[in-house]
Amino acid sequence: MTCITLMTDFGLRDGNVGVMRGVIWGISPGVSIADLSHLVGPQNIVEGALILGRSAPYFPEGTVHVVVVDPGVGTARRPIAARFGKQHFVGPDNGLCTLLLERAQGNGEPVEIVHLNRTKYWLPDVSHVFHGRDIFSPVAAHLANGVPLLDLGDAINDPVRLAIPRPERQDSVWKAQLIYIDWFGNLVTNLRQEDLEGVDDLALHIRGHQVRGLVRTFGERPPGELVNLYGSTGSLIVSVVNGSAAQALGAQVGDPVEVEVISG
Amino acid sequence: MTCITLMTDFGLRDGNVGVMRGVIWGISPGVSIADLSHLVGPQNIVEGALILGRSAPYFPEGTVHVVVVDPGVGTARRPIAARFGKQHFVGPDNGLCTLLLERAQGNGEPVEIVHLNRTKYWLPDVSHVFHGRDIFSPVAAHLANGVPLLDLGDAINDPVRLAIPRPERQDSVWKAQLIYIDWFGNLVTNLRQEDLEGVDDLALHIRGHQVRGLVRTFGERPPGELVNLYGSTGSLIVSVVNGSAAQALGAQVGDPVEVEVISG
Amino acid sequence: MTCITLMTDFGLRDGNVGVMRGVIWGISPGVSIADLSHLVGPQNIVEGALILGRSAPYFPEGTVHVVVVDPGVGTARRPIAARFGKQHFVGPDNGLCTLLLERAQGNGEPVEIVHLNRTKYWLPDVSHVFHGRDIFSPVAAHLANGVPLLDLGDAINDPVRLAIPRPERQDSVWKAQLIYIDWFGNLVTNLRQEDLEGVDDLALHIRGHQVRGLVRTFGERPPGELVNLYGSTGSLIVSVVNGSAAQALGAQVGDPVEVEVISG
Repeated sequence: MTCITLMTDFGLRDGNVGVMRGVIWGISPGVSIADLSHLVGPQNIVEGALILGRSAPYFPEGTVHVVVVDPGVGTARRPIAARFGKQHFVGPDNGLCTLLLERAQGNGEPVEIVHLNRTKYWLPDVSHVFHGRDIFSPVAAHLANGVPLLDLGDAINDPVRLAIPRPERQDSVWKAQLIYIDWFGNLVTNLRQEDLEGVDDLALHIRGHQVRGLVRTFGERPPGELVNLYGSTGSLIVSVVNGSAAQALGAQVGDPVEVEVISG
Repeated sequence: MTCITLMTDFGLRDGNVGVMRGVIWGISPGVSIADLSHLVGPQNIVEGALILGRSAPYFPEGTVHVVVVDPGVGTARRPIAARFGKQHFVGPDNGLCTLLLERAQGNGEPVEIVHLNRTKYWLPDVSHVFHGRDIFSPVAAHLANGVPLLDLGDAINDPVRLAIPRPERQDSVWKAQLIYIDWFGNLVTNLRQEDLEGVDDLALHIRGHQVRGLVRTFGERPPGELVNLYGSTGSLIVSVVNGSAAQALGAQVGDPVEVEVISG
Repeated sequence: MTCITLMTDFGLRDGNVGVMRGVIWGISPGVSIADLSHLVGPQNIVEGALILGRSAPYFPEGTVHVVVVDPGVGTARRPIAARFGKQHFVGPDNGLCTLLLERAQGNGEPVEIVHLNRTKYWLPDVSHVFHGRDIFSPVAAHLANGVPLLDLGDAINDPVRLAIPRPERQDSVWKAQLIYIDWFGNLVTNLRQEDLEGVDDLALHIRGHQVRGLVRTFGERPPGELVNLYGSTGSLIVSVVNGSAAQALGAQVGDPVEVEVISG
């Protein structure tokens, strides 16, 4: 049994996410649909790509991920659908699927991408401003019903890729970046646990503050203390125990982060 | 397979929407349920009616729309259920279904409305303050199970109707109104694409600003520019490309909007 | 057919709630999942316990409630699963299930609690910071699939219980407390309808204001008026008709509330 996920920057007030469910259930009655997030920052493609990249591995084989962060809707940007390993992606060709693509290629898994241009799999009337409803939802429902990917459009091999910044090492210092701030105000960097394999002490510098050491989990330190730890998908994060590091440090996405390896 | 939609002004924090799902699944196990919106402004019946009106057409035949924006809960206002064309509505009799009713009548589709007064289809204990849980959810579940509408109460033909303002034409100028502001800050007017059939240039006036022309989609103009275009359900809207027109203009629902037809 | 509910303090932006659905559907495909709330205050266990306590009775027999408000994640605090009467609870052992436990014991219903320590029912890799994904979601899915509770871990009988404040009576005056503020700004006290059986007039004192009398529902008084009434689960609440009592009175959770019984 397939499931579908939805991610958009539509918010939760206007009914548009509900409408996508209506379109999907009209084509694939009762298919299971999970919301990933509808609070992606307006037009923030990088944020959407990051949330998708960290979430997708926890969904079953065959899942269809519909992602609509689409400032170019109605212009020449292509609507696409893709297979990355054992899951599908449906959305605009603007880089949202970059991490899924890189991961599948890195793992030697199959990748197939099509330019959605078979209108028989769309709603009969297609607006210029809401392809999430008129193209992506119906296409996802048809994929969930078992329509082969290659029936939906012509194969392409030049999808748009985002340049997601990678940390750089200079001797014992990593030059990294704050790439995401979560609901609790934790600061997610682009340094990963595998980059720091074996490191058991470090000093992290951000916004003029130093955060020393590495804890395993929040409860090891008293409320209010600044700590470094690995988040649930392996990113190095900076937190305030039972508080908001974003608020405490006034940090923002894009802030430079320096991590000095002290031992390990 | 039927599906049910839920729309309320309950917000997402208190658990009340979850409770409605619990009640529904107790009667109709596993039925598919979509949230339309739970961020309707408190007691804002017009906003609920507008969201329902634009969303309902995208749901399958047989869908049951449960709408609970209900300042009169527990008073003499009637609880109702209705058939409008091929879908059902369940909620208070306060005008929430006005657009569904008008559309069905306009299309010559069947309309049947009942005053919910058969308590055997309700929860055993009915509070004075939460009919969404105690009356509307169980009734919707019974409808989804195939209970005939007329078993649920006595037929009525005098439902409350909202007076939703319509634009008026004076020579080449439409006197219209801002009726909704969406998540992105787009300004939705009550002028519709069919009112402006053939028009290819216009000047829109709102809050002392003039917005000239008509674009097809956001990406035709640079970020930050004010544009007029048709929204995804055919309303004339005013947007700031990749920004918020509501913020840029300080606009509010109810603002007068004048549209001068220049050519077409 | 079983259903599962989810309650967390994760918010709706980061994708973590969606990921829990993915994990559950990987083990129990298509099982019905309802969100209770993901806007519980960060680390606010009492708030989570209150929302769960008032919501659970409206879900069908066999429902599995997954609750993740978990400041002690990754520390020595135990992960638990439990049967309270005809429903299950899965989450950290920090008091979140206090009201379910008290109710089941009060009703003489069966109570069984296990310390989750059989890793075969978890995801293969368990992080130190997201047991909602790695332990609680898979365990809930296995419960929904019919795995017996006692297979999931060793029985315990010393779960953590919250001390939820109870009102005290001194002659004709109740000393009570404001325990929750809902989305509309209604003030929920810990006085219950059964405490005030037969009372038909009272004077409530909060933040220097007196609110006199008891109405049955909001619509009995004009918009803007302060009223006392019983909420949908039997708590005495203070409201402003079509407004926010929290805003009008500047009230906060924890505020003392005095209720003088005048007649009845």
